[in-house]
Amino acid sequence: MSHFSRKIPKGDSREREVCEDCGYIAYENPKIVAGAVVSHEGQILLCRRAIEPRSGFWTLPAGYLELHEQPEEGARREVREEACAEVVLEGLIGIYTVSRLSQVQMFFRARFAGGPAFGAGEETLEARLFAWEDIPWAEIAFPSVTWTLELWRAGLDGMTDLARFSKKV
Amino acid sequence: MSHFSRKIPKGDSREREVCEDCGYIAYENPKIVAGAVVSHEGQILLCRRAIEPRSGFWTLPAGYLELHEQPEEGARREVREEACAEVVLEGLIGIYTVSRLSQVQMFFRARFAGGPAFGAGEETLEARLFAWEDIPWAEIAFPSVTWTLELWRAGLDGMTDLARFSKKV
Repeated sequence: MSHFSRKIPKGDSREREVCEDCGYIAYENPKIVAGAVVSHEGQILLCRRAIEPRSGFWTLPAGYLELHEQPEEGARREVREEACAEVVLEGLIGIYTVSRLSQVQMFFRARFAGGPAFGAGEETLEARLFAWEDIPWAEIAFPSVTWTLELWRAGLDGMTDLARFSKKV
Repeated sequence: MSHFSRKIPKGDSREREVCEDCGYIAYENPKIVAGAVVSHEGQILLCRRAIEPRSGFWTLPAGYLELHEQPEEGARREVREEACAEVVLEGLIGIYTVSRLSQVQMFFRARFAGGPAFGAGEETLEARLFAWEDIPWAEIAFPSVTWTLELWRAGLDGMTDLARFSKKV
Protein backbone atom coordinates (compact mmCIF):
# COMPACT_ATOMS: atom_id res chain seq x y z
CA MET A 1 0.00 0.00 0.00
CA SER A 2 1.07 3.57 -0.70
CA HIS A 3 1.82 5.78 2.29
CA PHE A 4 1.62 9.27 0.92
CA SER A 5 1.29 12.33 3.10
CA ARG A 6 1.31 16.06 2.41
CA LYS A 7 4.64 17.76 3.14
CA ILE A 8 6.72 20.65 1.86
CA PRO A 9 9.81 19.04 0.28
CA LYS A 10 13.23 20.64 0.94
CA GLY A 11 13.77 23.64 -1.37
CA ASP A 12 10.08 23.81 -2.28
CA SER A 13 7.45 26.26 -1.06
CA ARG A 14 4.30 24.15 -1.49
CA GLU A 15 2.87 21.02 0.04
CA ARG A 16 3.27 17.93 -2.17
CA GLU A 17 2.23 14.29 -1.86
CA VAL A 18 5.37 12.61 -0.49
CA CYS A 19 5.77 8.84 0.01
CA GLU A 20 6.65 8.13 3.67
CA ASP A 21 8.63 5.05 2.69
CA CYS A 22 10.79 6.07 -0.26
CA GLY A 23 10.52 9.87 -0.37
CA TYR A 24 9.02 9.89 -3.86
CA ILE A 25 7.32 13.23 -4.57
CA ALA A 26 4.10 12.94 -6.57
CA TYR A 27 3.86 16.41 -8.14
CA GLU A 28 0.33 17.28 -9.20
CA ASN A 29 -0.11 19.78 -11.99
CA PRO A 30 -2.98 21.05 -14.12
CA LYS A 31 -4.07 18.85 -17.00
CA ILE A 32 -4.63 19.99 -20.55
CA VAL A 33 -7.94 19.28 -22.30
CA ALA A 34 -7.78 19.56 -26.10
CA GLY A 35 -10.79 19.75 -28.38
CA ALA A 36 -12.12 21.07 -31.67
CA VAL A 37 -14.94 22.91 -33.39
CA VAL A 38 -15.30 20.96 -36.63
CA SER A 39 -17.42 22.87 -39.12
CA HIS A 40 -18.74 22.05 -42.56
CA GLU A 41 -20.63 24.56 -44.70
CA GLY A 42 -21.41 26.61 -41.59
CA GLN A 43 -22.63 23.63 -39.59
CA ILE A 44 -20.90 22.46 -36.40
CA LEU A 45 -20.18 18.92 -35.25
CA LEU A 46 -21.50 18.17 -31.75
CA CYS A 47 -21.49 14.89 -29.81
CA ARG A 48 -24.11 13.74 -27.32
CA ARG A 49 -22.26 12.30 -24.34
CA ALA A 50 -22.68 8.62 -23.50
CA ILE A 51 -20.73 8.95 -20.24
CA GLU A 52 -20.84 10.93 -17.03
CA PRO A 53 -20.48 13.74 -16.23
CA ARG A 54 -23.35 15.27 -18.23
CA SER A 55 -24.39 12.09 -20.02
CA GLY A 56 -27.02 12.87 -22.65
CA PHE A 57 -25.86 16.47 -23.11
CA TRP A 58 -24.13 17.87 -26.20
CA THR A 59 -20.44 18.68 -26.28
CA LEU A 60 -17.56 19.43 -28.60
CA PRO A 61 -15.19 16.49 -29.04
CA ALA A 62 -12.47 17.06 -26.41
CA GLY A 63 -10.46 15.22 -23.77
CA TYR A 64 -7.29 14.97 -21.74
CA LEU A 65 -3.98 15.34 -23.54
CA GLU A 66 -1.85 12.20 -23.35
CA LEU A 67 1.89 12.03 -22.64
CA HIS A 68 4.10 13.24 -25.53
CA GLU A 69 1.15 14.71 -27.46
CA GLN A 70 0.96 18.19 -28.91
CA PRO A 71 -2.40 19.86 -28.09
CA GLU A 72 -3.27 19.75 -31.81
CA GLU A 73 -2.62 15.99 -31.89
CA GLY A 74 -4.77 15.51 -28.83
CA ALA A 75 -7.64 17.50 -30.39
CA ARG A 76 -7.46 15.42 -33.59
CA ARG A 77 -7.36 12.18 -31.58
CA GLU A 78 -10.38 13.18 -29.51
CA VAL A 79 -12.36 14.00 -32.67
CA ARG A 80 -11.36 10.59 -34.03
CA GLU A 81 -12.32 8.76 -30.80
CA GLU A 82 -15.56 10.60 -30.04
CA ALA A 83 -16.86 11.47 -33.51
CA CYS A 84 -15.04 8.98 -35.78
CA ALA A 85 -13.81 11.82 -38.00
CA GLU A 86 -10.45 12.82 -39.46
CA VAL A 87 -9.91 16.57 -39.32
CA VAL A 88 -7.43 19.30 -40.21
CA LEU A 89 -6.89 22.02 -37.61
CA GLU A 90 -6.90 25.62 -38.77
CA GLY A 91 -6.37 27.77 -35.68
CA LEU A 92 -6.62 28.13 -31.93
CA ILE A 93 -9.98 29.45 -30.77
CA GLY A 94 -9.62 29.83 -27.05
CA ILE A 95 -7.91 28.74 -23.82
CA TYR A 96 -10.05 28.17 -20.75
CA THR A 97 -8.74 27.57 -17.25
CA VAL A 98 -11.21 25.73 -15.05
CA SER A 99 -9.45 26.46 -11.77
CA ARG A 100 -11.57 24.18 -9.57
CA LEU A 101 -10.68 21.18 -11.75
CA SER A 102 -7.11 22.34 -12.54
CA GLN A 103 -7.87 22.04 -16.25
CA VAL A 104 -6.49 24.18 -19.04
CA GLN A 105 -8.73 23.61 -22.05
CA MET A 106 -7.56 24.43 -25.58
CA PHE A 107 -10.04 24.44 -28.47
CA PHE A 108 -9.11 24.51 -32.16
CA ARG A 109 -10.94 25.44 -35.35
CA ALA A 110 -11.13 22.44 -37.69
CA ARG A 111 -12.51 21.10 -40.97
CA PHE A 112 -13.02 17.55 -42.20
CA ALA A 113 -9.89 16.14 -43.85
CA GLY A 114 -12.04 14.67 -46.64
CA GLY A 115 -15.81 14.92 -46.89
CA PRO A 116 -18.08 15.28 -43.84
CA ALA A 117 -17.73 11.69 -42.59
CA PHE A 118 -18.39 11.12 -38.89
CA GLY A 119 -20.15 8.84 -36.44
CA ALA A 120 -20.62 8.06 -32.76
CA GLY A 121 -17.52 6.84 -30.92
CA GLU A 122 -17.61 4.76 -27.73
CA GLU A 123 -18.21 7.72 -25.42
CA THR A 124 -20.81 9.26 -27.74
CA LEU A 125 -24.54 8.47 -28.12
CA GLU A 126 -24.92 10.45 -31.33
CA ALA A 127 -22.80 12.81 -33.47
CA ARG A 128 -24.52 15.45 -35.55
CA LEU A 129 -23.90 18.58 -37.61
CA PHE A 130 -25.92 21.56 -36.37
CA ALA A 131 -26.66 24.82 -38.13
CA TRP A 132 -25.89 27.72 -35.74
CA GLU A 133 -29.59 28.45 -35.19
CA ASP A 134 -30.29 24.80 -34.34
CA ILE A 135 -27.62 24.39 -31.63
CA PRO A 136 -29.39 23.03 -28.51
CA TRP A 137 -28.02 25.67 -26.11
CA ALA A 138 -30.09 24.42 -23.18
CA GLU A 139 -28.59 20.94 -23.59
CA ILE A 140 -24.91 21.88 -23.84
CA ALA A 141 -22.76 19.83 -21.44
CA PHE A 142 -20.22 22.41 -20.22
CA PRO A 143 -19.88 26.21 -20.11
CA SER A 144 -16.58 26.08 -22.03
CA VAL A 145 -18.42 24.52 -24.99
CA THR A 146 -20.69 27.58 -25.16
CA TRP A 147 -17.75 30.00 -24.83
CA THR A 148 -15.84 28.18 -27.55
CA LEU A 149 -18.80 28.21 -29.93
CA GLU A 150 -19.26 31.94 -29.35
CA LEU A 151 -15.57 32.68 -30.04
CA TRP A 152 -15.68 30.40 -33.11
CA ARG A 153 -18.60 32.44 -34.37
CA ALA A 154 -16.74 35.72 -33.70
CA GLY A 155 -13.82 34.65 -35.90
CA LEU A 156 -10.08 34.78 -35.40
CA ASP A 157 -9.69 38.51 -34.96
CA GLY A 158 -9.58 38.21 -31.20
CA MET A 159 -6.39 36.14 -31.08
CA THR A 160 -4.17 39.14 -30.37
CA ASP A 161 -6.37 40.09 -27.41
CA LEU A 162 -5.36 37.87 -24.48
CA ALA A 163 -8.35 38.84 -22.33
CA ARG A 164 -10.69 37.82 -25.13
CA PHE A 165 -9.43 34.33 -25.96
CA SER A 166 -8.14 33.28 -22.54
CA LYS A 167 -10.61 33.01 -19.68
CA LYS A 168 -10.50 31.63 -16.14
CA VAL A 169 -13.38 30.37 -14.05
CA MET B 1 5.79 0.90 -0.21
CA SER B 2 3.93 1.56 -3.43
CA HIS B 3 3.30 -1.38 -5.74
CA PHE B 4 2.53 0.21 -9.08
CA SER B 5 2.66 -1.71 -12.33
CA ARG B 6 1.74 -0.80 -15.90
CA LYS B 7 -1.66 -2.12 -17.00
CA ILE B 8 -4.48 -1.13 -19.32
CA PRO B 9 -7.42 -0.32 -17.01
CA LYS B 10 -10.90 -1.56 -17.98
CA GLY B 11 -12.46 0.72 -20.61
CA ASP B 12 -9.11 2.40 -21.38
CA SER B 13 -6.86 1.88 -24.38
CA ARG B 14 -3.49 2.82 -22.88
CA GLU B 15 -1.19 1.44 -20.21
CA ARG B 16 -1.36 3.35 -16.92
CA GLU B 17 0.42 3.04 -13.59
CA VAL B 18 -2.02 0.97 -11.49
CA CYS B 19 -1.55 0.20 -7.78
CA GLU B 20 -1.54 -3.59 -7.27
CA ASP B 21 -3.00 -3.21 -3.79
CA CYS B 22 -5.85 -0.73 -4.10
CA GLY B 23 -6.38 -0.35 -7.87
CA TYR B 24 -5.62 3.38 -7.83
CA ILE B 25 -4.76 4.60 -11.36
CA ALA B 26 -1.99 7.20 -11.48
CA TYR B 27 -2.76 8.99 -14.75
CA GLU B 28 0.25 10.79 -16.17
CA ASN B 29 -0.36 13.76 -18.43
CA PRO B 30 1.72 16.50 -20.01
CA LYS B 31 2.67 19.41 -17.80
CA ILE B 32 2.30 23.07 -18.70
CA VAL B 33 5.28 25.41 -18.46
CA ALA B 34 4.35 29.11 -18.36
CA GLY B 35 6.78 31.96 -18.90
CA ALA B 36 7.15 35.52 -20.14
CA VAL B 37 9.15 37.88 -22.30
CA VAL B 38 9.28 41.01 -20.17
CA SER B 39 10.46 43.97 -22.22
CA HIS B 40 11.24 47.57 -21.34
CA GLU B 41 12.14 50.19 -23.97
CA GLY B 42 13.07 47.41 -26.41
CA GLN B 43 15.23 45.55 -23.89
CA ILE B 44 14.39 42.02 -22.72
CA LEU B 45 14.66 40.55 -19.24
CA LEU B 46 16.74 37.36 -19.08
CA CYS B 47 17.77 35.29 -16.06
CA ARG B 48 21.00 33.34 -15.68
CA ARG B 49 20.08 29.97 -14.20
CA ALA B 50 21.42 29.03 -10.75
CA ILE B 51 20.10 25.45 -11.03
CA GLU B 52 20.41 22.44 -13.28
CA PRO B 53 19.62 21.74 -16.02
CA ARG B 54 21.68 24.36 -17.88
CA SER B 55 22.98 26.15 -14.80
CA GLY B 56 24.87 29.30 -15.83
CA PHE B 57 22.91 29.72 -19.07
CA TRP B 58 20.39 32.48 -19.83
CA THR B 59 16.66 31.82 -19.90
CA LEU B 60 13.31 33.55 -19.86
CA PRO B 61 11.54 33.34 -16.49
CA ALA B 62 9.31 30.24 -16.77
CA GLY B 63 8.28 27.15 -14.85
CA TYR B 64 5.65 24.50 -14.18
CA LEU B 65 2.07 25.62 -13.75
CA GLU B 66 0.70 24.82 -10.29
CA LEU B 67 -2.72 23.34 -9.47
CA HIS B 68 -5.65 25.76 -9.97
CA GLU B 69 -3.49 28.35 -11.77
CA GLN B 70 -4.28 29.99 -15.09
CA PRO B 71 -1.24 29.97 -17.43
CA GLU B 72 -1.09 33.77 -17.14
CA GLU B 73 -0.97 33.52 -13.33
CA GLY B 74 1.80 30.93 -13.58
CA ALA B 75 3.82 33.15 -15.90
CA ARG B 76 3.48 36.13 -13.55
CA ARG B 77 4.43 33.98 -10.54
CA GLU B 78 7.52 32.63 -12.28
CA VAL B 79 8.65 36.17 -13.18
CA ARG B 80 8.13 37.11 -9.52
CA GLU B 81 10.06 34.06 -8.22
CA GLU B 82 12.93 34.07 -10.71
CA ALA B 83 13.33 37.76 -11.49
CA CYS B 84 11.67 39.48 -8.50
CA ALA B 85 9.49 41.56 -10.83
CA GLU B 86 5.78 42.36 -11.02
CA VAL B 87 4.52 42.30 -14.60
CA VAL B 88 1.40 42.81 -16.71
CA LEU B 89 0.80 40.31 -19.51
CA GLU B 90 -0.14 41.65 -22.93
CA GLY B 91 -0.50 38.63 -25.20
CA LEU B 92 0.37 35.03 -25.96
CA ILE B 93 3.55 34.66 -28.02
CA GLY B 94 3.82 30.95 -28.67
CA ILE B 95 3.03 27.40 -27.57
CA TYR B 96 5.80 24.82 -27.71
CA THR B 97 5.31 21.11 -27.19
CA VAL B 98 8.47 19.35 -26.08
CA SER B 99 7.27 15.83 -26.75
CA ARG B 100 10.19 13.99 -25.15
CA LEU B 101 9.54 15.77 -21.84
CA SER B 102 5.73 15.87 -22.21
CA GLN B 103 5.82 19.63 -21.71
CA VAL B 104 3.52 22.19 -23.29
CA GLN B 105 5.22 25.57 -22.89
CA MET B 106 3.25 28.82 -23.11
CA PHE B 107 5.07 32.15 -23.32
CA PHE B 108 3.46 35.56 -22.88
CA ARG B 109 4.41 39.10 -23.85
CA ALA B 110 4.78 41.27 -20.72
CA ARG B 111 5.75 44.69 -19.35
CA PHE B 112 6.74 45.79 -15.87
CA ALA B 113 3.72 46.69 -13.74
CA GLY B 114 5.56 49.79 -12.45
CA GLY B 115 9.08 50.82 -13.40
CA PRO B 116 11.76 48.31 -14.49
CA ALA B 117 12.40 46.84 -11.02
CA PHE B 118 13.84 43.32 -10.95
CA GLY B 119 16.49 41.17 -9.28
CA ALA B 120 17.80 37.63 -8.95
CA GLY B 121 15.42 35.12 -7.33
CA GLU B 122 16.55 31.92 -5.62
CA GLU B 123 16.95 29.94 -8.84
CA THR B 124 18.70 32.82 -10.63
CA LEU B 125 22.35 33.92 -10.53
CA GLU B 126 21.70 37.22 -12.24
CA ALA B 127 18.77 39.01 -13.94
CA ARG B 128 19.50 41.55 -16.65
CA LEU B 129 17.85 43.61 -19.41
CA PHE B 130 19.42 42.96 -22.81
CA ALA B 131 19.12 45.01 -25.98
CA TRP B 132 18.23 42.68 -28.90
CA GLU B 133 21.74 42.93 -30.36
CA ASP B 134 23.32 42.05 -27.02
CA ILE B 135 21.37 38.83 -26.36
CA PRO B 136 23.93 36.07 -25.65
CA TRP B 137 22.53 33.60 -28.21
CA ALA B 138 25.31 31.08 -27.65
CA GLU B 139 24.54 30.99 -23.93
CA ILE B 140 20.76 30.54 -24.12
CA ALA B 141 19.57 27.64 -21.92
CA PHE B 142 16.83 26.06 -24.08
CA PRO B 143 15.73 26.11 -27.74
CA SER B 144 12.22 27.28 -26.80
CA VAL B 145 13.76 30.47 -25.35
CA THR B 146 15.28 31.26 -28.75
CA TRP B 147 12.02 30.48 -30.59
CA THR B 148 10.04 32.65 -28.18
CA LEU B 149 12.43 35.58 -28.56
CA GLU B 150 12.20 35.32 -32.35
CA LEU B 151 8.39 35.27 -32.29
CA TRP B 152 8.39 38.16 -29.81
CA ARG B 153 10.52 40.12 -32.24
CA ALA B 154 8.19 39.24 -35.15
CA GLY B 155 5.19 40.74 -33.35
CA LEU B 156 1.67 39.50 -32.82
CA ASP B 157 0.59 39.17 -36.44
CA GLY B 158 1.28 35.44 -36.46
CA MET B 159 -1.34 34.59 -33.85
CA THR B 160 -3.93 33.59 -36.41
CA ASP B 161 -1.45 31.20 -38.05
CA LEU B 162 -1.41 28.01 -35.97
CA ALA B 163 1.67 26.57 -37.68
CA ARG B 164 3.57 29.73 -36.86
CA PHE B 165 2.94 30.12 -33.13
CA SER B 166 2.58 26.44 -32.16
CA LYS B 167 5.53 24.14 -32.63
CA LYS B 168 6.38 20.58 -31.61
CA VAL B 169 9.81 19.07 -31.10
